[in-house]
Amino acid sequence: MSRPVRVGILGAGGFTGQELIRIFGRHPHVDLVYITSSEYVSRSLVEIFPALAAPAVKNLVFSSHPKKTEDAGRLDAIFLATPDDVALRWAPQFVAAGIKVIDISGAFRLLDKAEFKEYYGLEQDQPETLAQAVYGLTEVNREKIRTAKLVANPGCYPTAALLPLYAYRDLIDTSRPLVIDAKSGTSGAGGRKEKDGLGYSTVYENFRAYKTANHQHAPEIVQEFSRMSGSRISLRFTPYLLPMYRGILSTTYAFVKPGVTEKDCIVAAEALSARELFARFRSSVNAVELRAVQNTNFCDYAHHLDEKNGLLQIVSAIDNLMKGAAGQAVQNMNLMFALPETAGVY
Amino acid sequence: MSRPVRVGILGAGGFTGQELIRIFGRHPHVDLVYITSSEYVSRSLVEIFPALAAPAVKNLVFSSHPKKTEDAGRLDAIFLATPDDVALRWAPQFVAAGIKVIDISGAFRLLDKAEFKEYYGLEQDQPETLAQAVYGLTEVNREKIRTAKLVANPGCYPTAALLPLYAYRDLIDTSRPLVIDAKSGTSGAGGRKEKDGLGYSTVYENFRAYKTANHQHAPEIVQEFSRMSGSRISLRFTPYLLPMYRGILSTTYAFVKPGVTEKDCIVAAEALSARELFARFRSSVNAVELRAVQNTNFCDYAHHLDEKNGLLQIVSAIDNLMKGAAGQAVQNMNLMFALPETAGVY
Amino acid sequence: MSRPVRVGILGAGGFTGQELIRIFGRHPHVDLVYITSSEYVSRSLVEIFPALAAPAVKNLVFSSHPKKTEDAGRLDAIFLATPDDVALRWAPQFVAAGIKVIDISGAFRLLDKAEFKEYYGLEQDQPETLAQAVYGLTEVNREKIRTAKLVANPGCYPTAALLPLYAYRDLIDTSRPLVIDAKSGTSGAGGRKEKDGLGYSTVYENFRAYKTANHQHAPEIVQEFSRMSGSRISLRFTPYLLPMYRGILSTTYAFVKPGVTEKDCIVAAEALSARELFARFRSSVNAVELRAVQNTNFCDYAHHLDEKNGLLQIVSAIDNLMKGAAGQAVQNMNLMFALPETAGVY
Amino acid sequence: MSRPVRVGILGAGGFTGQELIRIFGRHPHVDLVYITSSEYVSRSLVEIFPALAAPAVKNLVFSSHPKKTEDAGRLDAIFLATPDDVALRWAPQFVAAGIKVIDISGAFRLLDKAEFKEYYGLEQDQPETLAQAVYGLTEVNREKIRTAKLVANPGCYPTAALLPLYAYRDLIDTSRPLVIDAKSGTSGAGGRKEKDGLGYSTVYENFRAYKTANHQHAPEIVQEFSRMSGSRISLRFTPYLLPMYRGILSTTYAFVKPGVTEKDCIVAAEALSARELFARFRSSVNAVELRAVQNTNFCDYAHHLDEKNGLLQIVSAIDNLMKGAAGQAVQNMNLMFALPETAGVY
Repeated sequence: MSRPVRVGILGAGGFTGQELIRIFGRHPHVDLVYITSSEYVSRSLVEIFPALAAPAVKNLVFSSHPKKTEDAGRLDAIFLATPDDVALRWAPQFVAAGIKVIDISGAFRLLDKAEFKEYYGLEQDQPETLAQAVYGLTEVNREKIRTAKLVANPGCYPTAALLPLYAYRDLIDTSRPLVIDAKSGTSGAGGRKEKDGLGYSTVYENFRAYKTANHQHAPEIVQEFSRMSGSRISLRFTPYLLPMYRGILSTTYAFVKPGVTEKDCIVAAEALSARELFARFRSSVNAVELRAVQNTNFCDYAHHLDEKNGLLQIVSAIDNLMKGAAGQAVQNMNLMFALPETAGVY
Repeated sequence: MSRPVRVGILGAGGFTGQELIRIFGRHPHVDLVYITSSEYVSRSLVEIFPALAAPAVKNLVFSSHPKKTEDAGRLDAIFLATPDDVALRWAPQFVAAGIKVIDISGAFRLLDKAEFKEYYGLEQDQPETLAQAVYGLTEVNREKIRTAKLVANPGCYPTAALLPLYAYRDLIDTSRPLVIDAKSGTSGAGGRKEKDGLGYSTVYENFRAYKTANHQHAPEIVQEFSRMSGSRISLRFTPYLLPMYRGILSTTYAFVKPGVTEKDCIVAAEALSARELFARFRSSVNAVELRAVQNTNFCDYAHHLDEKNGLLQIVSAIDNLMKGAAGQAVQNMNLMFALPETAGVY
Repeated sequence: MSRPVRVGILGAGGFTGQELIRIFGRHPHVDLVYITSSEYVSRSLVEIFPALAAPAVKNLVFSSHPKKTEDAGRLDAIFLATPDDVALRWAPQFVAAGIKVIDISGAFRLLDKAEFKEYYGLEQDQPETLAQAVYGLTEVNREKIRTAKLVANPGCYPTAALLPLYAYRDLIDTSRPLVIDAKSGTSGAGGRKEKDGLGYSTVYENFRAYKTANHQHAPEIVQEFSRMSGSRISLRFTPYLLPMYRGILSTTYAFVKPGVTEKDCIVAAEALSARELFARFRSSVNAVELRAVQNTNFCDYAHHLDEKNGLLQIVSAIDNLMKGAAGQAVQNMNLMFALPETAGVY
Repeated sequence: MSRPVRVGILGAGGFTGQELIRIFGRHPHVDLVYITSSEYVSRSLVEIFPALAAPAVKNLVFSSHPKKTEDAGRLDAIFLATPDDVALRWAPQFVAAGIKVIDISGAFRLLDKAEFKEYYGLEQDQPETLAQAVYGLTEVNREKIRTAKLVANPGCYPTAALLPLYAYRDLIDTSRPLVIDAKSGTSGAGGRKEKDGLGYSTVYENFRAYKTANHQHAPEIVQEFSRMSGSRISLRFTPYLLPMYRGILSTTYAFVKPGVTEKDCIVAAEALSARELFARFRSSVNAVELRAVQNTNFCDYAHHLDEKNGLLQIVSAIDNLMKGAAGQAVQNMNLMFALPETAGVY
């Protein structure tokens, strides 16, 4: 495509929307031309987020959410950074209008209607659109993403856990339970609007697990790891809230198949790293840290294998707003428009 | 004992020493009469730590470390809050002088000479003293502590993990590996003197695992849990550094014996809680948080059992400087002098 | 008074209420027997604030706010840690019932009706009660506090600024403007209920001035410094929000009268410090830090005088929840009941 | 210049050096070809700072400091992000070799030899080079910078204070003392190597003034404001350490000349803002916050005038690593090579 891709963002005032604006402020092949917000209607980007107002985007003004897709103007792609119910309603309309959709909400991730109802509290009443959605874990589904009309961008915890698991998937004994013990900064645990439990005096100098019984990312991880490994797994998923802002460090404990050795693990780990720019294998779990991935689209990972017990530990780190949300969304958009995959996110 | 117990602290300038001073500032049955520091010799407590200078201790002045035990004056008990090698050298001498010793260093925790050498880099050349040492996990060894001449006060990570494990010990299948994934504030990860990796710009807005290959608390946990469960276990221990100051939240994953039910776990958990003031069983792992135990001697804990897979998750929280160090040390001292066990720490 | 003083707290669930509970958990002469909360009615202290549940208070249960003063039971004193309008309504009733009142809200601090309306948005419709109120800056009004029926406990910023200003008051040229540039942790800038601007992602890694046009502590400082200096001053007051929890560090810039020397300043500073336990004069402004006063009732202060220009800088630090609220309130209550002034707060 | 500018960084491992690497990772007209570090010799950028390894710089390897300028290869410009003494030694040699120098240390900022000795502890033994140096406050000295061989890049505190003062300079009564009360994150208060006082447990949950007697930025501010206002001023400068990482918020108090009105101040403030892209005038001091300038080259500022007393308050905010160091250095380099002034920093 020789002219710039024209894109819009629904819900541009949230954490992920802000990160998208930041990326498009220096993306060489994209014009961000449309941003909406329920809170900042008719106010300028410069006024609301002065730190994001790079030259390419500085004249943007927030619109209200559209009444019909035509209100968004002539777009090539739209990013949905809205609550799930808003995305569920708008994605089909944009697809119908021939506009490619990258949905960063959870509206089109879960294939099972009942599970979606249980974890999101919503009816999945858009089965045709769901059938068209491609799960946007780029390194796993790259070819399908290229031609997708709708990408369901993965959740932040699923990205942190699944990308390294993809490397080791053939070594893991899926008949035994998987444990994921995942720690996130506050920007991954809730939206910009402060919810209960995200006030300063609640988070600061504190640490705790939350939503262990019903976090919507648990079924997403099970679904996708089952798909990549070929058999349904059992998972204990525990998310924790770190007293900091940006990043997810996720630790997975799994059992390997009989006979799997440290060498097998290294070969598998290096294979992914060699093939994928954004996957970086580190030699020790101690070397995986949030500092190394913040503000980048990288996923760092390392493992430890207790050969005697067949116990594999994988530690991985991502920036939840980049590889875990806006960065991967742009990576996917690049593929959908045959742009260089790293444009704007590297 | 009708007169106050006269105590001293070797190494009173570190984090644990400061916490001891704070406790003794309001302990009704103890006179703190002697504090040493290699850094603050001849300087007053008021000058160095103004926030700790409660009336009972405000006139204290730091001495240099003693040349002989007599330099400490007439003491009933001495707390060793020094590096391991200093404690290794002084504990036998104070014991010989008839002064009860509470050693908060790691010098007398590991029974295996080779292991001690490997993890501490020191020769265990005080075997007679080691043979006299009682491991000071109060709730487990209370009766032995009452008559001990030397208490080896547990490490902070071992306390956080072992106290709740003591509740569930009979339910766990010790033939299968145990996983401990433990997150600590900076005061538990290093001393007051800033070491590599504890600078502000390294810790702030960061999170990472550290010392996974060789943390000295791993063999301590194995030794003591093996002792309480009756069989040698296999452990994967991973400590992480939280960007905050105070508290350890420790998550243990273990497999239970065949047939163990959620009800069995609750009965076990409640039994400990009912018997022990400082052990508080919470109904959900989400309810265990550092906020609830900071500046207290409590250990909060809860569990989740996946009955189908027999996978038990235990989440526990302590204040590493209190129940994980100074608080438990004072609790032990109270027992050694037949004082109310909670005096000064409740 | 030989029996313990029986006290209650209206609004015990907020930051200041919690701090009062913590103090009464170990106050030797007080029984806390009554706590109210609009949010936690009928729930136990142990459940809501486990870290505060010291033996002396552990059986308390939150009541709803009283319908009449008799609902509070037989009390000697009541602390009002409620919003201003609630305190305005209840203080007169408790006074009438013969119960001594320590009001930590701002309801009875400002003497000027119009000013009260402007800064608090409330009508001062209790002039008789206002006339009885004693401004509770302990070191300044000690004798009046002893016999007061109602103490209007000072605001946190006014305490931090006024206590050291009391030392230097005779040296200052009150015809020239005063500048107070005061930095506070979040617990001093708002209540427990998170307001706009106190969410984690708004405060963390940020710093800013707030409410410079209309902070209610500005007229309080002007009123009280004018009273202690004998002439009306002009003030520029700027509060800032620090990305931390506890403490206020306040910097005052003032001009001294002609001929005032560094020696005069030191004499004045030391006079206060020599007389008052909780006022600590430090030799350099660099030595005044929040760390030294956190969790204490102390006010540390120091000054720098530019003799050539007559420019005096005073830097002071308090714990906003202790000397700036609950600690000073208890100090005042001690005086009102002829208890040792430092009981429970030292 | 049609080919890219070839640049190097001496001392690229420090905070400022890292920020320069980050900028050059996406600067359209610059090739970063040479980086030195005393600590990371022969190690790759990818290994040491994985988050900075953008495509344009990812193959860089740290060299040791040069022995002679030729070791740096063929360069057009060199950035000195070293300690002052190293810069003092190298700047003259690079200038002599025809390589343009942007010195981010303090070696060539102070014109007075005695003052330099007093504040830096070094002899100014390069008077010829000093005579050539242009003080790099871009908006003030733009024309001289274009043709400079050596730019002395301003300190972070001076930039934060002086840029807005430049707007108001003609309104200020320079015969009366100026007060600057400036608050900085830790990255502005020290280098990457943790010094005394920058350990996590010292900075976290603390706030204090530091170096009030001898901060080297005080004489720099006096010198430059005296130069821009035409008369020597008297200054009280107080820097404080914020418990956060990035940004300086600086508050200046000054007296205006008789008759100066609020309208005069607004006109002056808007004139700068209208002319200069990186200077943003905000309507209220409450609207100036670190969040709005972090990771940007902007300086936000606002004022409050007490017309009755003639007291002017100016609040300004910068990112100390960007406009306060690396960002302004690149802005200056752009001018020196006739590149678009905003390239790489907007």
